[in-house]
Amino acid sequence: MAVKLYDYPKSGNGYKVRLLLAHLAIPYRYLPLDILQGETRTQEFLARNPNGKIPVLELDDGRILAESNAILYWLAQNTPYWPAASFAQSQVLQWLFFEQYSHEPNIAAARFWISIRGLDGSALEAQQLEQKHRAGNAALAVMEQHLQERPFFVDDTYSIADIALYAYTHVAGAGGFELHRYPAVQAWLERVRSQPEHVRITDWQAG
Amino acid sequence: MAVKLYDYPKSGNGYKVRLLLAHLAIPYRYLPLDILQGETRTQEFLARNPNGKIPVLELDDGRILAESNAILYWLAQNTPYWPAASFAQSQVLQWLFFEQYSHEPNIAAARFWISIRGLDGSALEAQQLEQKHRAGNAALAVMEQHLQERPFFVDDTYSIADIALYAYTHVAGAGGFELHRYPAVQAWLERVRSQPEHVRITDWQAG
Repeated sequence: MAVKLYDYPKSGNGYKVRLLLAHLAIPYRYLPLDILQGETRTQEFLARNPNGKIPVLELDDGRILAESNAILYWLAQNTPYWPAASFAQSQVLQWLFFEQYSHEPNIAAARFWISIRGLDGSALEAQQLEQKHRAGNAALAVMEQHLQERPFFVDDTYSIADIALYAYTHVAGAGGFELHRYPAVQAWLERVRSQPEHVRITDWQAG
Repeated sequence: MAVKLYDYPKSGNGYKVRLLLAHLAIPYRYLPLDILQGETRTQEFLARNPNGKIPVLELDDGRILAESNAILYWLAQNTPYWPAASFAQSQVLQWLFFEQYSHEPNIAAARFWISIRGLDGSALEAQQLEQKHRAGNAALAVMEQHLQERPFFVDDTYSIADIALYAYTHVAGAGGFELHRYPAVQAWLERVRSQPEHVRITDWQAG
């Protein structure tokens, strides 16, 4: 038996979980779903996550957890990827919520529209893309400022805050973001990549 | 000395924190800022939160925490509003991330546009409002399904998951959402309101 991870292989949200599972050397069954073919809207999948989104982690005993950053929290308990002090824990969560609210909705959507699904050609999406570039660059600027003075997001230690923010930042170029404008972010991306047992977003195998 | 809460009084995100502070009977200094007047974009505020968003909690010793749900986590440690078991904790976080990703961006934005700032009259915003109503109703439907079988979001116990989701759900009508379509959600709103030391979003006083 092993935990099961339901995921869309190009998803940064799913990649976060795969990256932490690799660091922790936890074996898992990988179940890729194609969101473009509606595979997360089937009755079977909705029974697992009524919100219809990947990633979803299914434990050996059938318990199910959704939301990538909640899955990171669960997996990171009692590991070096989650700090021991409660204020540092709260700071990690601050960055996880920043990621899901200010970063991912802009950076991941731009990447999805431009390089995965393709732009739909509508004026609405073109205007929304502009908004997403503006808001995504604001998020990258907040990260740049923070990383100018520290190697990792919280307590100078690589944690799930770094894992969560790495996932979509390292592929932001595919969404039209110019990462060379953020040198401290680029140096941090390199530090993340040099962590032991790092895997790439393309490193997956259905199981 | 007391903790300080920087907030915009109409913000549901700030209200979450005020509601938990009331439950916990923690005294605090309330510092209202007008986001419509750019008061979260000043140098002074950006020094506290470079992301330029309220709420921000400032502790007695000057440490600062941003992101409403991270502040809830910090305040709820070792209280009945945060469960003891790590899987239940992860489920609470699952709902907090659902709130910030699938719920708040849709329900809060519609309320802000319609009842706080007023619609800007652009075709872009009109189309985005439609998207937000569709996505916000999908989030409410997920909540309705979950609450049909339980009194609160996790472990049949009132927790910060309920506090976070209550904040914008109870004022969703101001964003054009029809809450009478969600009877289990309405019954849950009533259960939240009947908790000891409940305060309303309009209950605040600058200090």
